[in-house]
Amino acid sequence: MHRGCVITVGELGEFGVISRITGRLSQSPAVLLGPGDDAAVLTAPDGRVVVTTDVLIEGRHFRRDWSSGYDIGRKSAAQNLADIAAMGAEPTSLVVGLGLPADTAIEWLDALTDGFRDECALAGTGVAGGDIARSEIVMIGVTALGDLGGRPPVTRSGARPGHIVAVAGRLGYAAAGLALLRAGLASGAVPASEGVPGTGDAPGEGAGGSGGLPPGLVALVDAHRRPRPPYAQGPEAAGLGATAMLDVSDGLLQDLGHVAAASGVGIRLDPAALPIPEIFAEAAGVLGDEVDPLDWVLTGGDDHALAAAFPPDVRLPPEWTPIGEVTAGEGVQITGHPTMSGGWDHFRG
Amino acid sequence: MHRGCVITVGELGEFGVISRITGRLSQSPAVLLGPGDDAAVLTAPDGRVVVTTDVLIEGRHFRRDWSSGYDIGRKSAAQNLADIAAMGAEPTSLVVGLGLPADTAIEWLDALTDGFRDECALAGTGVAGGDIARSEIVMIGVTALGDLGGRPPVTRSGARPGHIVAVAGRLGYAAAGLALLRAGLASGAVPASEGVPGTGDAPGEGAGGSGGLPPGLVALVDAHRRPRPPYAQGPEAAGLGATAMLDVSDGLLQDLGHVAAASGVGIRLDPAALPIPEIFAEAAGVLGDEVDPLDWVLTGGDDHALAAAFPPDVRLPPEWTPIGEVTAGEGVQITGHPTMSGGWDHFRG
Repeated sequence: MHRGCVITVGELGEFGVISRITGRLSQSPAVLLGPGDDAAVLTAPDGRVVVTTDVLIEGRHFRRDWSSGYDIGRKSAAQNLADIAAMGAEPTSLVVGLGLPADTAIEWLDALTDGFRDECALAGTGVAGGDIARSEIVMIGVTALGDLGGRPPVTRSGARPGHIVAVAGRLGYAAAGLALLRAGLASGAVPASEGVPGTGDAPGEGAGGSGGLPPGLVALVDAHRRPRPPYAQGPEAAGLGATAMLDVSDGLLQDLGHVAAASGVGIRLDPAALPIPEIFAEAAGVLGDEVDPLDWVLTGGDDHALAAAFPPDVRLPPEWTPIGEVTAGEGVQITGHPTMSGGWDHFRG
Repeated sequence: MHRGCVITVGELGEFGVISRITGRLSQSPAVLLGPGDDAAVLTAPDGRVVVTTDVLIEGRHFRRDWSSGYDIGRKSAAQNLADIAAMGAEPTSLVVGLGLPADTAIEWLDALTDGFRDECALAGTGVAGGDIARSEIVMIGVTALGDLGGRPPVTRSGARPGHIVAVAGRLGYAAAGLALLRAGLASGAVPASEGVPGTGDAPGEGAGGSGGLPPGLVALVDAHRRPRPPYAQGPEAAGLGATAMLDVSDGLLQDLGHVAAASGVGIRLDPAALPIPEIFAEAAGVLGDEVDPLDWVLTGGDDHALAAAFPPDVRLPPEWTPIGEVTAGEGVQITGHPTMSGGWDHFRG
């Protein structure tokens, strides 16, 4: 092929693509047998295995003009790894099914692969296998496995009246970033070559794709592109005796509503305790009068914070912010506010 | 809603759809925590877990006018469960990611769900969880987990010169059925209500969708719609000391080529030993002079037979048919024939 030509996955062929992908990946320490056979084999030292799966579809969960391949890989891995953490488990591997258009540039796939690899590394794991097929649009099926290390899984149903509700990780950042993208105030995917550092979201990392936004707002756009779930806080919460936990993927109100329903309790949030960073006011100012940053915190998905209930005598580490308490009622209330609800329905939203 | 109206997944909404699906499923005995939380929890008594994933895309892996939702569910489950069997493992669960158009009739989704449930039941397992999202076409990401029961995994790399090569299950049936469908000699998906028996492919089961074909040929079309992997023969082969194994998904020649390459050996097939059922001659006759049934056996994918190498002193049970031997050479040869190759590349095919 000519120097400078874009090589596509169609030109490389199925086995060439698979070999290209596996060559860029790092192995999870739990992998006993990696890619290249009918199936992978992993350690499951606990004698149980935690498993979760998500499907991400171009135009619905991501846009290639808003997020680079690297960012899409990071985000796709992150949302599954967060589900493992939300059970109180440590991830042991990811497997990934990819549908790709034949004209996808191999460089884009490389970036996607690197994003998966780097996000997995942040959570102490790697991609153990996958499958690839031709598709008209990009479609990503991600399955994550995890190990409970002898702890009971932290489900959604153990919250009891009097328990403390606390969150770890960020709330509303991704929603604020998405609002900036939707308003056309930031646009363009970060080129793969600028997104490679696997250490998180250094300010300005995504500046190349955010059209001259102030650095603080760029960080919000980056939060949409690359969520930062607090992986270590999942097993930590389990160790502290958390009675219910989930990751906030559809919005705090909606997701805590799931905890309330599954536990047969109510949850009352203290609005003064909800963390609303100052940068949200700046973002709201840029977007206009209609915007209330509290909405981002209460209904914004995609940051993959962890929300958990703890017995009242638990001393919470600093990563956990108490935001309310479990009551004998039902649903989620906010002190001083009328009943609210909101969130994301994948068929209606 | 009015009686007689088609209810769509868009009308039911994400949580309605999930509830509808989970209500139709049977639980795998390995499931400790099923659908409804961030992740499922399964037993992994072996201390290791086998995992495999596949992505199936409408128009590429299945057609809704050629296969019913029920058949697509059966087939999607089967190809992953066969991968678990090919490692010598027993399946412990499936997780399924679904992309669905909003106008998908809920009845079609019910049939798909039933297909997953029934195929899993044939393999002694069930669906433990999943995810659902809106998509322009149907996309199915399936991940299967399995347990090795203390046995070593049977990889592709252990075949040694002098070993016997044998197959269990069907070869070429699905390819013959696909040829009939492509020739327009059979068409139309089997309605969900006719496909419900979970006991396999009783002759005529699919007759409603095969346009008056003779029963023998209908069985071939059904084989394309619902493969019958020999699940029990995977762990059986492992117990007998199989040194290499895989499931035939891209064609016998191509797949045995993977075993030869991974093991650093050659494989010589005895054409007289290859099972070519009489019905293939009838199908070839209907299709015309160009068709050689041996091609279906050698290059047809999608039946998910198991192919394995065994030490020469192993007494093979009747489900296993010896078809050749491992040699000191390389590649796959057929005694008396020039070197052949063939199979399926998902980007080039």
